[in-house]
Parts: sequence; C-alpha cells; structure tokens
Amino acid sequence: MEREWSSIELIISDFDGVMTDNRVLVDEAGKESVFVSRADGQAVHLLRSMGIDVVIISSETNGVVGRRADKLKVKCIQSVSDKKECVKKYSEENGILFKKIAYVGNDINDYAAMQLCGIKIVPNDAYEEVKHIADYITQAKGGYGVIREIADVVKRNRRHNFE
Amino acid sequence: MEREWSSIELIISDFDGVMTDNRVLVDEAGKESVFVSRADGQAVHLLRSMGIDVVIISSETNGVVGRRADKLKVKCIQSVSDKKECVKKYSEENGILFKKIAYVGNDINDYAAMQLCGIKIVPNDAYEEVKHIADYITQAKGGYGVIREIADVVKRNRRHNFE
Amino acid sequence: MEREWSSIELIISDFDGVMTDNRVLVDEAGKESVFVSRADGQAVHLLRSMGIDVVIISSETNGVVGRRADKLKVKCIQSVSDKKECVKKYSEENGILFKKIAYVGNDINDYAAMQLCGIKIVPNDAYEEVKHIADYITQAKGGYGVIREIADVVKRNRRHNFE
Amino acid sequence: MEREWSSIELIISDFDGVMTDNRVLVDEAGKESVFVSRADGQAVHLLRSMGIDVVIISSETNGVVGRRADKLKVKCIQSVSDKKECVKKYSEENGILFKKIAYVGNDINDYAAMQLCGIKIVPNDAYEEVKHIADYITQAKGGYGVIREIADVVKRNRRHNFE
Repeated sequence: MEREWSSIELIISDFDGVMTDNRVLVDEAGKESVFVSRADGQAVHLLRSMGIDVVIISSETNGVVGRRADKLKVKCIQSVSDKKECVKKYSEENGILFKKIAYVGNDINDYAAMQLCGIKIVPNDAYEEVKHIADYITQAKGGYGVIREIADVVKRNRRHNFE
Repeated sequence: MEREWSSIELIISDFDGVMTDNRVLVDEAGKESVFVSRADGQAVHLLRSMGIDVVIISSETNGVVGRRADKLKVKCIQSVSDKKECVKKYSEENGILFKKIAYVGNDINDYAAMQLCGIKIVPNDAYEEVKHIADYITQAKGGYGVIREIADVVKRNRRHNFE
Repeated sequence: MEREWSSIELIISDFDGVMTDNRVLVDEAGKESVFVSRADGQAVHLLRSMGIDVVIISSETNGVVGRRADKLKVKCIQSVSDKKECVKKYSEENGILFKKIAYVGNDINDYAAMQLCGIKIVPNDAYEEVKHIADYITQAKGGYGVIREIADVVKRNRRHNFE
Repeated sequence: MEREWSSIELIISDFDGVMTDNRVLVDEAGKESVFVSRADGQAVHLLRSMGIDVVIISSETNGVVGRRADKLKVKCIQSVSDKKECVKKYSEENGILFKKIAYVGNDINDYAAMQLCGIKIVPNDAYEEVKHIADYITQAKGGYGVIREIADVVKRNRRHNFE
C-alpha cells in the first residue's frame, strides 16, 4: 500500500461514525449535537500542510456537520442520498483520479462510494459490510481520532518515501 | 426462532435503555437530552422497506422521545404507566397478532408487555429481570445500535427463507 | 449486614460521582449539565414504595442537582461545605438514628459523613480514600445505576427477612 | 523524582485531552461544550492549599476553557500558537524556574513546552509523541481526573518529605 498512500491527494470522509461515535445527542426541541475529536481537527491542518484536501460527505441534513466543516475549513456536501454518485461528480469536477482518493466510511451506505476509491479506510467499530473490503482499519474507533490516525499514516509514508 | 423472525410485522420498542444508554443529560434548567444512534435511524428505514413498522412506547413524559420519533417518522406512545395494556390495546386496534410482534425492552417495567409478544428482545446491558426471559439478546448495548442489529437479523432470516 | 440493610429508613446520597460519572458538561457560557441514569430515577420510586426516603447532598452550587431532585421529588441540600455536620443536623431534625441511614459517596469529602452512618456505600469507581471504609461497593460505576443497585439490595433483604 | 515533585511550585496544563477526553460536543449552531471532571475541580483547590498554582494554556479560541478556568479560579491563556514561548514568557514574568514547573499535555503541540519543564506529565491516553518523554503517566485518562491524580502524588511526596 505504500505507493497508494504516498499518492493520495484527497480524503473523502463520512461524518457520523467516522468523525463521531455514530451517536447524536437529541434535546427536547429535537436539536442535535455530536461529539467530535480535537485530534481530528489538528489532523485536518496537518493534512492540508502536506497538500491533502479533506471533504466531508453526509447523508444527514442538519446544521452540525456544516458547523464542524466550517470550523475545520473543509468542504462539506450534505443530504447526499447516493454517495457513489457524489464521489464520481466531485472527482470529475475537480479532476482528481479515483485512485488518488482515500475514502473513509463506517456503514453500508458508504460501500459503493468506497469501492471506487484508491484507499478504503474504516474505523475500528465500522459495520462488517464495509469492514471486510477495507484496505486499512484504524485502531481508533469512530469519533476518537480516526482522521488523526490517517494523517499519521500518510506522514509516515511520505517520510519513508523521501528516505 | 426462524419462523418467528420471518413472520414479524411490528417491532414495539422501549426508548430509554434500548435506543439510548439509559442515561439522560440534565441541564441547569432541568432540560433533558439523550444520546441515540444514527445506526438505529437507518435501521428504521430498512425495517420499513421490509414492511415492518416500528412503534416506540415510553413511560417518560418529555419532549425528547417525541422529537426522535418525529425524525424517524415512527409512532410514539408516551407517559405509558402500564406497557402491557398499551401493547394489548395497540394490537387490538391495529389487528396485529401478539405472535407477530417483537418487543424490545431493558427493564422490569417491560416484563409483562414482553411476555405477551412473539419475540422478546433485550439489549446486552438489560437488567436481569428481563434478560432471563429474552429470546434474543443483542450484542449491542442500549443506545449503540440495538434496532440496527435487530433489522440485520430480520433481513438475514428473510433472505434465508427465500433460498 | 442483613440486619443493617433491613432497618434502613433513609438513604443520603452525594450527587456528583454517585448519580453521575463525576463529569460535567460545560458550554461556552459556563452552563453545566450532567448525565444521570433513568434506572436511578426508577429506584427512587421503588425505595419510596418500601418506605425509604432519599436525600441528596452536594457541595456544588448550581441548578443541575436541584432540577434532578425536583424531578425525582426528593429533598436536596446544596452548597454543603461540611457534609458530616449536614448529616448530623438532618438526623436530629428528623429524628432518624445514624444507624438507620445508608450514606452513598465517592470521594474524600464524603469520608466523615459516611463514618457516621449505619451503612457506608460507594460506587465501583469511588476514590480509595472512601472505598476502603465501605460496607458495600456497588458493581455499578457512578452515574450508571448505583441507586438502582442499592434499591435492589434493600428489596432482596426485605424479602429474605419475611421468609 | 521525589525531590522534583516536592519542589514543584506551578502546574501548567493543557486543556483539551488533559482536563477533557479530547472530544468536543458541537451543536447545530456550532456552539461547543466539553466534559470535565469534578475531581479535577477539587484537585485545584487541594493544590492551592499546598501553595501550588495551576495555569491552563490552550491553542483553542473559545469560551469553554475560559468559563472552566473562571469556575476553578485559575489563570487561563488561550489561543496559544506556540506553547513553548508561552511557558518561557510566563516563567520569566512570574520569576518561576522551569525546574519548578510541572507541565501536563497530551499531544505533539505540547512537546517543546513540556521539554522545558521540571516534570513532564501525560494522561494515560496521550499520543505517543509526548508519552515517550513523560516523567509520569497518570493512570487516569484525559478528562477523568488527571489533575486529581497529580495532586495526590504531590501530596504523598510532601508528606513523605516531612517524615
């Protein structure tokens, strides 16, 4: 996988279950909140400094993922019913080859999109449906630094390539 | 249990301790919030696509369960002091036989209602009082995808029946 | 301990670390929230039905513990700097012997108050300073049903006594 | 390490990942909240009573850490891009030798600051980059009483020195 890791230009990541533990806090007014990791926030900066973009895609329609994307200064595509089509379109419009994309997802609705991409990554607690096609399973569970662990792997592979 | 699983038409589920980890966040104004799982949200859609309805019944009286039910587009019966009577009434009014109902609960106040139903399901961390009468104990703990695991079992049983 | 358990008339319980996991959620305005357990809520009703009162004492001064006590319909004494004095005063004013009080606490500031009382109870994750003087260590960690487990023990002891 | 522990005059602590579990709750408006430990709150009082100051430094810019510092009545320096420079400046302005400072951090951006200080402390779940230079690794994970455990160690060392 060394060659694949070092040629990655873009990470497309699911939100719930990857950047969160797949749980959502619901209050009496139906307002939602989620727990994310500071470590993932730092990882996005680290990835950017290595020339790697991060894009979040989510099937959910609510403000939380948008606000998190704003803070991380990453692009966010919401209310996505077909993630495969979404990845295809993004790839074409931005001229990025599938093999240069790492896709991070945790559940069955990430399966087809994941199949397209050069590196398939899942959190440790992902559902079996996608876990068995993964190229890399993070030690971190969803919401506990998955993106951070990926950034560390990218960094190690780049360093190794220059040695 | 194969026959039972494949004839299920309705899942009646307790809320706290099944769709949540039985904990509730209380703020300085007494406002309550709970953590639910995105995986359960997807499971409700999957069950519906297989023709299985989900109904939530809860002894609590507050907005959280209602808002969650709204989002999942499922019926919700709140402030239920006698869950057995509630299940009986629902069964009669909707013409659904007890044996075609799967009941999911985690605590002693689910015991009598659970006894009525065709399949008795409890989360892994349910109280012993109901755990020992369960037909199926999910691997998932309450709030971490109990309904999702049930939807997967239903799906596997249906597939098997058509083979 | 059988005789002690069956003569208990009052449970005095610390809040943070017993009815919560000792953590507090702080927002950008400094507003605090805590996670409590639905199982403890049901336990308070069960204890009341057995003629046992519950009183919460807390060294903290904020609305959360008060709102929780309101919902459980139990007495709550807040901003307590000396819990031993507080227990003494409550005992005298209400004419309840120390030996008929079970005290539940998790930390060093519960030590002296706990020493006074008939049954000394700590959650599984209490600090060693009080854990080593405990008569009973719940299997439950703080915030995950400590009061519920105590109610179950009381219930079993009462039943046993009548047999 | 006995001599080092007993000569400590100041604890400089990172916030996220030390006083929290490195996770942050984000709501639909982008408002952030974090879980902190009551045990750490008590520890700050205990440390103060032993003549040891606590200062929080954080790279984040938001209200949560400020509100928590207010409640604990400790100094808080926010939006710190270079923690090493921050520690140097604080040390000079307050006339405290580096060797009398214990630094608590959990991640790579604490590395250089930590290197300066007399005692280097990390939570049990800190990142390897700083864990391998630590003088003391707390049993507690970040957000679950790290400062409390440090206060207990200081206390034991002081007692020992007087015996």
